[in-house]
Amino acid sequence: MTQHAIILFAHGARDPLWAAPFEKLAALVAARRPDHLVRLAFLELMTPNLADCVASLVAENIASMTIVPAFMARGAHLRRDLPLLVAALREQHPHLQISVTEALGETDAVLGAMADWIAASQDA
Amino acid sequence: MTQHAIILFAHGARDPLWAAPFEKLAALVAARRPDHLVRLAFLELMTPNLADCVASLVAENIASMTIVPAFMARGAHLRRDLPLLVAALREQHPHLQISVTEALGETDAVLGAMADWIAASQDA
Repeated sequence: MTQHAIILFAHGARDPLWAAPFEKLAALVAARRPDHLVRLAFLELMTPNLADCVASLVAENIASMTIVPAFMARGAHLRRDLPLLVAALREQHPHLQISVTEALGETDAVLGAMADWIAASQDA
Repeated sequence: MTQHAIILFAHGARDPLWAAPFEKLAALVAARRPDHLVRLAFLELMTPNLADCVASLVAENIASMTIVPAFMARGAHLRRDLPLLVAALREQHPHLQISVTEALGETDAVLGAMADWIAASQDA
């Protein structure tokens, strides 16, 4: 069985502390899916970028990967930049199976958890 | 009893579709806390900004509010920009009670929900 990779794709920021919750998320996902590789990649300002992340997975013989946009919402970065990046990856690595999920912040599960947390925080 | 407001504070984007999940989140929070007013405010590119949102609440005699940063992580926008905005609001409205929560994407509850969703999405 070929191993599958999950790439958490985040925006990136100048402040290195910004990456902390994404690193925590990667660890949480890895604990839930020990059968998959879990990696972080960034659109800008942090490394690795998506192309380097995928190249490193290809070098490890990973041929199947899911890109999970760790964004609150879908603006130009996800509507324009990410599709261009994925199209370039598919051209460069035609054998790869690449899928892209919804943005995390748009999923009903995450929106519900956010709403629950906000509602409960008002009683603290 | 004076009514309390919850302000969901998001980054903002050029694409109007970007705001959709925040509007959905506001509706989910309002359903859970019908005792509170729930409003959206944006750092840039969308309206209202935080100062206008607060001014409108003050005009409605709301004197107590919680700002919830609807961000994935804390970079310069939350470490530098938001504290400056809140300091200016406190100076302008010294009678207001303003509290600021963690960024949503940094809370254990939301990180756990994200990890659960990602882990489950791999079986779809």
